[in-house]
Amino acid sequence: MAKVALYPGTFDPITNGHLDIIARALTMFDRVIVTVARNTTKTPLFTADERLELIRSVLNNDDRVEVELFDGLLIDFAMKRQVTAIVRGLRAVSDFEYEFQMALMNRKLGEKVETVFLMPNEKYTYLNSSIIREIARFGGDVSDFVPPAVQEALVRKSSTT
Amino acid sequence: MAKVALYPGTFDPITNGHLDIIARALTMFDRVIVTVARNTTKTPLFTADERLELIRSVLNNDDRVEVELFDGLLIDFAMKRQVTAIVRGLRAVSDFEYEFQMALMNRKLGEKVETVFLMPNEKYTYLNSSIIREIARFGGDVSDFVPPAVQEALVRKSSTT
Amino acid sequence: MAKVALYPGTFDPITNGHLDIIARALTMFDRVIVTVARNTTKTPLFTADERLELIRSVLNNDDRVEVELFDGLLIDFAMKRQVTAIVRGLRAVSDFEYEFQMALMNRKLGEKVETVFLMPNEKYTYLNSSIIREIARFGGDVSDFVPPAVQEALVRKSSTT
Amino acid sequence: MAKVALYPGTFDPITNGHLDIIARALTMFDRVIVTVARNTTKTPLFTADERLELIRSVLNNDDRVEVELFDGLLIDFAMKRQVTAIVRGLRAVSDFEYEFQMALMNRKLGEKVETVFLMPNEKYTYLNSSIIREIARFGGDVSDFVPPAVQEALVRKSSTT
Amino acid sequence: MAKVALYPGTFDPITNGHLDIIARALTMFDRVIVTVARNTTKTPLFTADERLELIRSVLNNDDRVEVELFDGLLIDFAMKRQVTAIVRGLRAVSDFEYEFQMALMNRKLGEKVETVFLMPNEKYTYLNSSIIREIARFGGDVSDFVPPAVQEALVRKSSTT
Amino acid sequence: MAKVALYPGTFDPITNGHLDIIARALTMFDRVIVTVARNTTKTPLFTADERLELIRSVLNNDDRVEVELFDGLLIDFAMKRQVTAIVRGLRAVSDFEYEFQMALMNRKLGEKVETVFLMPNEKYTYLNSSIIREIARFGGDVSDFVPPAVQEALVRKSSTT
Repeated sequence: MAKVALYPGTFDPITNGHLDIIARALTMFDRVIVTVARNTTKTPLFTADERLELIRSVLNNDDRVEVELFDGLLIDFAMKRQVTAIVRGLRAVSDFEYEFQMALMNRKLGEKVETVFLMPNEKYTYLNSSIIREIARFGGDVSDFVPPAVQEALVRKSSTT
Repeated sequence: MAKVALYPGTFDPITNGHLDIIARALTMFDRVIVTVARNTTKTPLFTADERLELIRSVLNNDDRVEVELFDGLLIDFAMKRQVTAIVRGLRAVSDFEYEFQMALMNRKLGEKVETVFLMPNEKYTYLNSSIIREIARFGGDVSDFVPPAVQEALVRKSSTT
Repeated sequence: MAKVALYPGTFDPITNGHLDIIARALTMFDRVIVTVARNTTKTPLFTADERLELIRSVLNNDDRVEVELFDGLLIDFAMKRQVTAIVRGLRAVSDFEYEFQMALMNRKLGEKVETVFLMPNEKYTYLNSSIIREIARFGGDVSDFVPPAVQEALVRKSSTT
Repeated sequence: MAKVALYPGTFDPITNGHLDIIARALTMFDRVIVTVARNTTKTPLFTADERLELIRSVLNNDDRVEVELFDGLLIDFAMKRQVTAIVRGLRAVSDFEYEFQMALMNRKLGEKVETVFLMPNEKYTYLNSSIIREIARFGGDVSDFVPPAVQEALVRKSSTT
Repeated sequence: MAKVALYPGTFDPITNGHLDIIARALTMFDRVIVTVARNTTKTPLFTADERLELIRSVLNNDDRVEVELFDGLLIDFAMKRQVTAIVRGLRAVSDFEYEFQMALMNRKLGEKVETVFLMPNEKYTYLNSSIIREIARFGGDVSDFVPPAVQEALVRKSSTT
Repeated sequence: MAKVALYPGTFDPITNGHLDIIARALTMFDRVIVTVARNTTKTPLFTADERLELIRSVLNNDDRVEVELFDGLLIDFAMKRQVTAIVRGLRAVSDFEYEFQMALMNRKLGEKVETVFLMPNEKYTYLNSSIIREIARFGGDVSDFVPPAVQEALVRKSSTT
């Protein structure tokens, strides 16, 4: 049976760090489903549809990756799709504790879905979407941190806000 | 003289983790005063009165526990009520640092009130009120994490929002 | 060439902990530029101009310190002003991780600007501006934690809100 | 191609926490190779052969798991055996930092071998081999923490030392 | 029934930080039993008897405190003496994790004995016995960190080694 | 007056991570004194003289750096040499806590000597001398992590032990 990983996130927007985790997940799983959280606690810079489209355009060469909007309990989705594991990137201690709590809770809610943690390239340790948005807002250069399509979208977004 | 502990929180809503800490505090203190923060920085799911009522209904068999709404400086309350110690649950490193800062500040403001840290059962490591609200919002089963009265209140709240 | 340090922050309001870091920075740099973030993600208690004026009034005897409002990418400012280093205070592990990420990002954006971390006096470990605002809001005594001018400003602010 | 995981350790002795990680690894990998470090920085309680035999006797029903003594650079072994990933259990923040450093170093030395982190059942958070040895040394009951064969070996070892 | 706390340690030697924790424990417990670990993993500077005598001489005015040598499983001692709680000082995140693991293990082994964590005065955050031994070894002044009797013992020990 | 930094360590052996910190220190201090701890708690791979010679041979082009053997209390040395600051590299949370304690203690012992923390290049996050020794012991390639002179010394040392 094919091994499928679920990689959930807000992706506001997707960064090279996220892409690095997806590439690593594909070394051990047959397929990866990327789920984009429709509703987030904070107001996102990009709409759910924009975030979905950016990921799709960036990943369009790889039919082992599927991208979907998602709203609800992650564990329900994971069980319905019979995924083998939820994949999360770990960069720092603060990541670790939050991720640990979520993974333990997900295990309580659906015992059969494992959470696996992968480490991004160390050059992405400093990288997260909110720093990217902040740099882009002030016209800084983000080309080392996000794919070209995302960079363009950030420029367009900055000029209209 | 009776030893009295103060257990402050937002309790939005009270969970089995909170109840576990209260039970442990009662092994070493004669009485526990639970204070419910009336105003919180974020908009709570339950009003202050609802949060108070939920705690009271859950704890109604135990006359060693007193529940009160509270608004102001915790240390003033602690000194006015001559409590022996403020009790806090510690689950993770991130808890620890925030609690450490609060405890040091409270010690500066009122030197005679000690802060003691207790550890909940390890099965509550993953548990906090915001995860509970999130699960309930999507209709997930929270019966392992909160008392029945709280579960019902969460269901009612979800159906009206 | 004179060695100049940049000490950025929100300073809502400036505390004795901030002043302690500035004093330590002056033992190893010739000048310190304090930049006050005009826009912050949260609504500040004091306006940017009020925060600037409070710092200036507190530091007015020291011509080695310059205070400026600032809005934009910190690293652009640091490079334009040819500062030797960005100075940050470290109190706790949680500080450390956030500061680490920011410093790594700033190094990517402007390789020539170093970030140095200084440790405040241990009696300021528990101190941050949000705790000060909270205590002042409830009429608590903050005279051990902020300079007199800030204490007065907090009292005025509390009586008008 | 079969996906193979490498699970390295000292296993002095193997605990239920280690077994829990092996079981979780088998949900996503076809086979697991357990390597027992022959030489360790500290003098082990059990010899390398004893540690190997204990693991084999405990895991004897599962032909998806292979157990081997090992001495050398882990990454050389991983590349020679063409493993997909190195598996490590994460229990706490202190684990995390050490494991992070080792994983980054292994990635430098052999870029094709990923490290994946799994979380043991939360009831094993407190468990490590040195605590087990300490309890057994004083005649405490370790039956909840290790398989029966290990418990017996600990009793024998205590009576001979 | 009298509330009794157990405060275990190696105390090689006892410092002002340890004394601070004992004083805080006495604000909430009727008595404190200090247990001195006879055998430690590292070779101590002071023999078990010397460590015991130093603590007794320092605490001799207080009949609420009892000092005992101890070798074995702490939890057995705690249950035999029917203590209410084990007391531990928490200074830093690294303390926290180790203490957390020990407390969870003790809870497994003897469910009725609670562990409570107290915070020493922030001026003792930097203090531990091994730093004291290091300073004394080089003839540094430790009078701010240990009681006079311990200081003298350190001087005597340095001159004979 | 010239600003002098003190960079203490065991340097068993010096790595590219150490050299990175020295280079960064030289952007803000006029001179750096590297002190090599003669006695360490663990038996070092290289003798004190070998460690000193390796550092000197690696740094020989830079007359702003001085290298010395050292045995005693660091703060005494720092005060005698009137250094402006002690420099330490911070890579991870575990570094942070130990360094914090040492810095606070040094501040108690000699108030006028500041400790400043610098962050190495993120590619050295995983790097420490004990990992280098371990890799070299098994004949692994360390050329990315240490200067050529150190690599040769490691090879010679491995072949003679």
